[in-house]
Amino acid sequence: MTMTSNNFVLYSYFRSSASYRVRIALNLKRINYEYRAVPLLNKGGAQHSEEYRKLNPSNQVPTLIHGDHVIGQSMAIIDYLDQIKPEPLLFPKGAFQRALVIQACEVINSGAQPLHNLRVLQELEKRFAATEAQKNEWTAFWIATSLTALENLLSKHAGNFCFGQRVTAADCFLIPHLANADRFQVPLDPYPKLTRIRATCASINEFQKASPLSQPDTPPSA
Amino acid sequence: MTMTSNNFVLYSYFRSSASYRVRIALNLKRINYEYRAVPLLNKGGAQHSEEYRKLNPSNQVPTLIHGDHVIGQSMAIIDYLDQIKPEPLLFPKGAFQRALVIQACEVINSGAQPLHNLRVLQELEKRFAATEAQKNEWTAFWIATSLTALENLLSKHAGNFCFGQRVTAADCFLIPHLANADRFQVPLDPYPKLTRIRATCASINEFQKASPLSQPDTPPSA
Repeated sequence: MTMTSNNFVLYSYFRSSASYRVRIALNLKRINYEYRAVPLLNKGGAQHSEEYRKLNPSNQVPTLIHGDHVIGQSMAIIDYLDQIKPEPLLFPKGAFQRALVIQACEVINSGAQPLHNLRVLQELEKRFAATEAQKNEWTAFWIATSLTALENLLSKHAGNFCFGQRVTAADCFLIPHLANADRFQVPLDPYPKLTRIRATCASINEFQKASPLSQPDTPPSA
Repeated sequence: MTMTSNNFVLYSYFRSSASYRVRIALNLKRINYEYRAVPLLNKGGAQHSEEYRKLNPSNQVPTLIHGDHVIGQSMAIIDYLDQIKPEPLLFPKGAFQRALVIQACEVINSGAQPLHNLRVLQELEKRFAATEAQKNEWTAFWIATSLTALENLLSKHAGNFCFGQRVTAADCFLIPHLANADRFQVPLDPYPKLTRIRATCASINEFQKASPLSQPDTPPSA
């Protein structure tokens, strides 16, 4: 836990890809923050505590606290960070350019990740007796579907980053999503543009520091 | 199909709640548009055609075309409309206020609707032999979960609209979501604030005109 907080606190879970997005954004904007782990799997999940629900009525991570402001949802948090510390601007100016970045984020944010996050897999198990293998196939299917959509969406725009040579929020969403792809053994060969973007980001300290492998709550076995 | 297009074309499906959000936003901003129906259920779904995929690589509705610009994802489209025609501004100014509106939208946009849209229900049936009753229970569960989160999130903010006395994007997301709640017989008694907002919006012409019951592709039986 970093104590140079400047009044920023992030409720996070090392493996949460939505938290990972926000960690990247905070690092890119050079905002120091206090890390508060929300262990999603311990004792039924700390996200369901009454205390946490008051901060985040969806019982999900991440939640950002900045002074008196409490914000949930990664899209909302990153937009907020853009407003209060525009450098680097993650949702660019220019109506159409901005819309494309939001669209790319949403292909992941609403189009894929919600379908395979913890609570959904728990419900699949509960309602349909989904096995581990079935849950993994389900997850891999939605990840692959979204990566195909992204590779096509970015075909005219991608450079070293999702949009040309400048980092945007789309990269903050893509990199955690590709980490999920790895975890669920989704082959990345069909996605050369996304693979190139990943190589760029892998070399950048702000992305590295945000990795699930190096958070305060990352278990030694991870 | 309206021919007073002003270069705006909306690919929509009458019952798609994501399309409904954008129809409300277009109406509130008094933008005339040409309506192009994408029949999601006909012959395997027109959204999967090669022609439509070129417009929207996620094979989903809505897609907005404005001149040369092609935009998918309701959050991206509404943000774009805000940039090019700010009146009324649906994502308000003020970093925190704006973040709260985005958060409320995302509780629906990423937190609920993707879990019960057509393609997910189709996969539940295919992979887990989900029955109609099970699919309906699944859908009602996620809708109720998200409405509880929203009622709590808005507890300090709601007035006649989600945020006080001014319409925002959150209302454009909430009203279609409540139409889904009705369709899946989710009781609304536990959500007095949301119910009040619905009553406000039900009296507004721009919301009425966007209803799934009165689109060019609404079947006579709907």
